[in-house]
Amino acid sequence: MPDSVRQLRLGAFLQATGHHVAAWRHPAAQADAGHNIAHYRELAKTAERGKLDLIFLADSPATSGEVTPAALARNAKNAHFEPLTLWSALSQVTEHVGFVATSTTTYEDPYTTARKFASLDWISQGRAAWNVVTTGVDASANFSLSAHPVHDDRYARAEEFIDVVKGLWDSHEDDAFLRDRESGVYLSASKVHRLDHHGRFFQVRGPLNVGRPPQGHPVIVQAGASEPGRELAARTAEVIFTANLTLEDAQAFYADLKNRLGRHGRTADQLLIMPGIFPVLGGTEREARDNYEYLQSLIDPETAWAILRQYYRGVDLSSYTLDDIAPPPAATTNGNQSRLKLVHDLILREQPTLRALYRTLATARGHQVVVGTPEQVADAIQLWFEQGAADGFNIMPPILPTGLTDFIDEVVPILRRRGLFRHEYEGRNLRENLGLTRPTNQFSISGEGLARSA
Amino acid sequence: MPDSVRQLRLGAFLQATGHHVAAWRHPAAQADAGHNIAHYRELAKTAERGKLDLIFLADSPATSGEVTPAALARNAKNAHFEPLTLWSALSQVTEHVGFVATSTTTYEDPYTTARKFASLDWISQGRAAWNVVTTGVDASANFSLSAHPVHDDRYARAEEFIDVVKGLWDSHEDDAFLRDRESGVYLSASKVHRLDHHGRFFQVRGPLNVGRPPQGHPVIVQAGASEPGRELAARTAEVIFTANLTLEDAQAFYADLKNRLGRHGRTADQLLIMPGIFPVLGGTEREARDNYEYLQSLIDPETAWAILRQYYRGVDLSSYTLDDIAPPPAATTNGNQSRLKLVHDLILREQPTLRALYRTLATARGHQVVVGTPEQVADAIQLWFEQGAADGFNIMPPILPTGLTDFIDEVVPILRRRGLFRHEYEGRNLRENLGLTRPTNQFSISGEGLARSA
Repeated sequence: MPDSVRQLRLGAFLQATGHHVAAWRHPAAQADAGHNIAHYRELAKTAERGKLDLIFLADSPATSGEVTPAALARNAKNAHFEPLTLWSALSQVTEHVGFVATSTTTYEDPYTTARKFASLDWISQGRAAWNVVTTGVDASANFSLSAHPVHDDRYARAEEFIDVVKGLWDSHEDDAFLRDRESGVYLSASKVHRLDHHGRFFQVRGPLNVGRPPQGHPVIVQAGASEPGRELAARTAEVIFTANLTLEDAQAFYADLKNRLGRHGRTADQLLIMPGIFPVLGGTEREARDNYEYLQSLIDPETAWAILRQYYRGVDLSSYTLDDIAPPPAATTNGNQSRLKLVHDLILREQPTLRALYRTLATARGHQVVVGTPEQVADAIQLWFEQGAADGFNIMPPILPTGLTDFIDEVVPILRRRGLFRHEYEGRNLRENLGLTRPTNQFSISGEGLARSA
Repeated sequence: MPDSVRQLRLGAFLQATGHHVAAWRHPAAQADAGHNIAHYRELAKTAERGKLDLIFLADSPATSGEVTPAALARNAKNAHFEPLTLWSALSQVTEHVGFVATSTTTYEDPYTTARKFASLDWISQGRAAWNVVTTGVDASANFSLSAHPVHDDRYARAEEFIDVVKGLWDSHEDDAFLRDRESGVYLSASKVHRLDHHGRFFQVRGPLNVGRPPQGHPVIVQAGASEPGRELAARTAEVIFTANLTLEDAQAFYADLKNRLGRHGRTADQLLIMPGIFPVLGGTEREARDNYEYLQSLIDPETAWAILRQYYRGVDLSSYTLDDIAPPPAATTNGNQSRLKLVHDLILREQPTLRALYRTLATARGHQVVVGTPEQVADAIQLWFEQGAADGFNIMPPILPTGLTDFIDEVVPILRRRGLFRHEYEGRNLRENLGLTRPTNQFSISGEGLARSA
């Protein structure tokens, strides 16, 4: 295969027991996954055995908001490891796979965030990535705030937050550290820079107390798909995780994002678009279908209604049965706007029953679901990849660990045979494996460093 | 040796290239230690080989404040790993040693702090400890604040912060997780608790999105020795790291802290007092002395004056030479009050020249310095341990890695032969190795959990 063949990027979106809402009840799932470090060690090693680019953790700084005791009792996703500490641990049992950790700009502080990711990048030797989120759920009550900031303010804060973090990562130029024992000069003071940021949300002096990360900057990832989310991604993101249910929607999203890049002085290869895909595998199509139905059978009614209530906040569903046609969805709230719009469009397009709706949302929450043989899953991936809908995929295993192992052992070899995916890691770090360029240091041309600040 | 012989607790205070201010210039030091994960992996394994209770990292969320370019250029301690990410990584290459990470209550948030330490405790399977600090240096300019909060406010905030963190750690009772696949009940909703904290500094609802840590609570460590620091430690700390230069001062501190415990309903065995010790070893006393003088010879004048300026903020030293008697120290500032007092007392007691003063501070910054053979260092440890001045020690190697390796290989065997230190780890986690009891869950008796909150 020639070097020039465009290559798929593949990530594994690791969700404790698996992405299906009732995954933990499946006999193949690791039911205590959220607190089981050995489980995650194996997942990371499996991803690396498959030469995946990255593994990814979602995160919110709160338990899920609105729960009845019965729904809470059935929710396996409310207690789990914190992403940065988990990824840092797993960096020690792997050598190549990248680590995408979600971290919020709404409830954290840029100096602390810059430190954590710079430290992870050093510890992992260049494998850190930051999934920047503004947090869809209201976590204000855990952070001494009176209310969840509104959507536009969250995005304005996120933009400034990212600028501050990037500026702090540039505090030391790459060649600042001399460590000359003879002269006693440890670093070049002219290559250490204060940020002196004065903005609407943040006043940050710096410098950061960590050296410039091996990747220059850890890779910037985003998942927001609202209008402000797309603009932020076009300006700052290098990878975008997205949820699309149809090829047409995915193509439109892909084209829209790539087209926005030019306005920010960026080229199409500087932003990789990776939709989620939820593959339910079977040796035959029939077997895959049976596996899917078995998973769906694990959802009890309490959980079904809890799923629906998440998308119908403020709507009284008490007069409905699961066999009724889904009513119009709730008005857009101050949450995950792009996901609510996707569900809104789905309801208008398909007019599903509430049962059909919860079954769709129970799997991949708006991401593409493919039920089939390994060849069929590979076909689905290749189609979107070649039809202008994706640069790669974020694999969402229905159950873990087997959903990941099966994908690596059964689907990845097919993608490899088709010349779409690597046999070995090419780069020295995540950024190189993804084909992304190393950012230059914003101070490296103009700065005088701290040599004149005394 | 009978079981009942009181046993020393030993920790290793790991400071990148070593504790001596010019350690990095020593040929045996790892000059790039602050960003060298392989170096720290070896240190952690060495500590565990020696059966040490714990390893410890200090931390500030800022580079050192006041620096001239020349002093900055010679400072090897301004850029390094962030503690939680580093410890989490090292938990994967060790099985027994405990991890004490410093984290500030002044510049962080209790929900985030509770999560990080709970996550580390799960990842390390019960080996996390939190060194609670209010931060001595002014880091306000990195956190969008107009000023460093004053000393008393920092301590009032710290006290509330610790209460919130402990309450969040109790969010789930130990037996909350049922994971009953058959019934579909993942956890017992009556054993999940909101904190609903409403205080002067914080409003925190909870529950925490991490299960109760394996140790119940990660071990609480403190180092403050001012009056508010001692009161906070007497109420909440389980280990205290302290700096004392003389046996008499250490005995007075030890007695004072142990005596305060009763007022808080605690017993003397619930707080372990571990002074720092800076051992400079040699095969003979003469060789140890030569090693000490060689280290001191690595300090250049810029660094010497930078050390002195830290303790003379606001005092003009420009008319002094290093051979002048040290002038009266600066008035107490809004920083590390107990350390400033210790240096103040030293100056009044010994009337050193400025040269003698910087040489004292260049080593262990107010901790005990012992220069001698392994037997002599063991004697110093045993003396304080048996004379009511210490429950154990926090070893401060002058240079790393050799300062730690030498202590483990040369001093620990002597302590073992004297029946003072373990041959094998006794406990399943850090808390058990330290002989500390597991805290009961504050909700376990009275709470109704979230079963009635809907």
